[in-house]
Amino acid sequence: MPELRKDPIVGRWVIISTDRAKRPTDFTREDMKMRGGFCPFCPGNENKTPPEIQAYRPANGGPPPQKDTPGWSVRVVPNKFPALGIEGTLDRQADGMFDRMNGVGAHEVIIETPDHNTSLATLPAKKIEDILWAYRDRILDLKKDRRFKYILIFKNHGEPAGASLEHAHSQLIALPIVPIYVSEEITGAKQYFLYKERCVFCDVIRQETDAGIRVVAENADFLTIAPYAPRFPFETWILPKRHESAFEHSSTQMFESLAVALKTLVTKADRVLDNPPYNLVIHTSPVQESTNDHYHWHIEFMPKLTKTAGFEWGTGFYINPTPPEEAARFLREASVEETESATAR
Amino acid sequence: MPELRKDPIVGRWVIISTDRAKRPTDFTREDMKMRGGFCPFCPGNENKTPPEIQAYRPANGGPPPQKDTPGWSVRVVPNKFPALGIEGTLDRQADGMFDRMNGVGAHEVIIETPDHNTSLATLPAKKIEDILWAYRDRILDLKKDRRFKYILIFKNHGEPAGASLEHAHSQLIALPIVPIYVSEEITGAKQYFLYKERCVFCDVIRQETDAGIRVVAENADFLTIAPYAPRFPFETWILPKRHESAFEHSSTQMFESLAVALKTLVTKADRVLDNPPYNLVIHTSPVQESTNDHYHWHIEFMPKLTKTAGFEWGTGFYINPTPPEEAARFLREASVEETESATAR
Repeated sequence: MPELRKDPIVGRWVIISTDRAKRPTDFTREDMKMRGGFCPFCPGNENKTPPEIQAYRPANGGPPPQKDTPGWSVRVVPNKFPALGIEGTLDRQADGMFDRMNGVGAHEVIIETPDHNTSLATLPAKKIEDILWAYRDRILDLKKDRRFKYILIFKNHGEPAGASLEHAHSQLIALPIVPIYVSEEITGAKQYFLYKERCVFCDVIRQETDAGIRVVAENADFLTIAPYAPRFPFETWILPKRHESAFEHSSTQMFESLAVALKTLVTKADRVLDNPPYNLVIHTSPVQESTNDHYHWHIEFMPKLTKTAGFEWGTGFYINPTPPEEAARFLREASVEETESATAR
Repeated sequence: MPELRKDPIVGRWVIISTDRAKRPTDFTREDMKMRGGFCPFCPGNENKTPPEIQAYRPANGGPPPQKDTPGWSVRVVPNKFPALGIEGTLDRQADGMFDRMNGVGAHEVIIETPDHNTSLATLPAKKIEDILWAYRDRILDLKKDRRFKYILIFKNHGEPAGASLEHAHSQLIALPIVPIYVSEEITGAKQYFLYKERCVFCDVIRQETDAGIRVVAENADFLTIAPYAPRFPFETWILPKRHESAFEHSSTQMFESLAVALKTLVTKADRVLDNPPYNLVIHTSPVQESTNDHYHWHIEFMPKLTKTAGFEWGTGFYINPTPPEEAARFLREASVEETESATAR
């Protein structure tokens, strides 16, 4: 069973893998190669993943489709090498002056498409909607488990961004704690709300819409911007224009618009930055306070363009060589013919 | 002039380079090659760096040595591509709802040795002491400048850790703000002190000394440990055993011991992890409150063993595949013949 341990100084929890501990020789210095040839996420290889938790299969009027067989459009399976164990109790306890609990949680993989050779940029917006629905379905299901305080959805695209398999997929981790960046955002947003009685993200949306210089794209429901103080070159956020504290509360129309906003952003990034590796994270409210006035869910998109990030880990101090106004201009001006009509609705 | 900008939600300041803005095509995807052949840090090439700020040259009884000539053992120069500008005022101001100030600060390079082919692991401990004295001298000098709130010393070793030149060097950045990780540590340490009336780091030192399982090395003045909740495999901290809030307050004897502790740790890491790239950061108190009871300066050493760090940026959530007890055992058991006698004093 992995362990969750808390740093006694800053209060940050980390997962310590105790089962498959890495010894010094397990760290290879070369790039991990994408496993060529065999892909466990491709249709026909369903028995190479743990049994599916959920899958969307088009109804075809015949008998109900069998689990773990081809024919799905989106498929959710447990991670074969989970960072957390799904069974057991948290068993919070002291370890001298330190604090620990069992590494209880869920770690799932959302296989975004049966087609090995496609990506968010090339999938039709309608298919991306299905992925968003799968996120929502899994969140609603896992919310029932009272052990979990936070459900994190993220995507690593490309090997330099941490993807170990090439086939388009995202991941979900359900946690007994709130990750520290999200909890810092919530604390900051609460303080702002206390002072101003307004959501700080709503204020950002208003100001950025007026200023325009950091706007990347916009549709009826979502605003895509380069944030004012980004840590990384071409860091981009997608925010719902109307206040909404939790991703999973989104309406059907919202998911339609978000699919278009996502596809637009990734397509633009592919054009401007030549198919960059990237990380994408959904920041949403913790499950136990998913309806509130101070926090505003959003997506953070971070292309991995620089390699020199070691120092930043020691300081939290970032030097960004690309002003967000420049990044936004490049992304804004990049054409996305296919999605243009949908964006302009 | 670079800009410092504050994220309105979490309050993190970042440096935005406005002068030499990176355009999309400036991000090359391949590894930066260490510039072979010519080295601006080698003796004889002193005119290839900005004029030296400080250098240690052995007194030889002759006329005083000339600046920017060979014969130095440690040499400090301004960074040729500084992240911050040394001239001007902060000019803090609002930018709509946002906050910005001029990117005023110092960015210096400490060239650790004239010998291109050496490193902290191979330098004699006596030479490492000189490097520590150079850090101290620069801190004391820059503390006089009231614009600076924090003086950060760090070292990137190896290209994957962000070093762009191979010749052993460290860097110093003087900042008008306190980097967020340090300020979080200070906040946490203050809260602990308020509750316990003891320094949390002193408590950690006591508990780790008693437990022993996370101890890597120890000498008269310093304890080297794998922290209880490390973010990275083989992350290691060096802490002064007696409470001291600021690095630059260290005595001559402390610097002697620290040089040995540093050399021991880097030598052990080289043995166990096959000369890993690493980052090393000195966490010390802000200049304006450098004497206090709650904060305890220390060094954080982070080998860069895993490449998959993109996701962590979006969440602050870390999965560490090596329990610190295992990491400590490997490092503790690694022999360091040359420094052994000095360590055991």
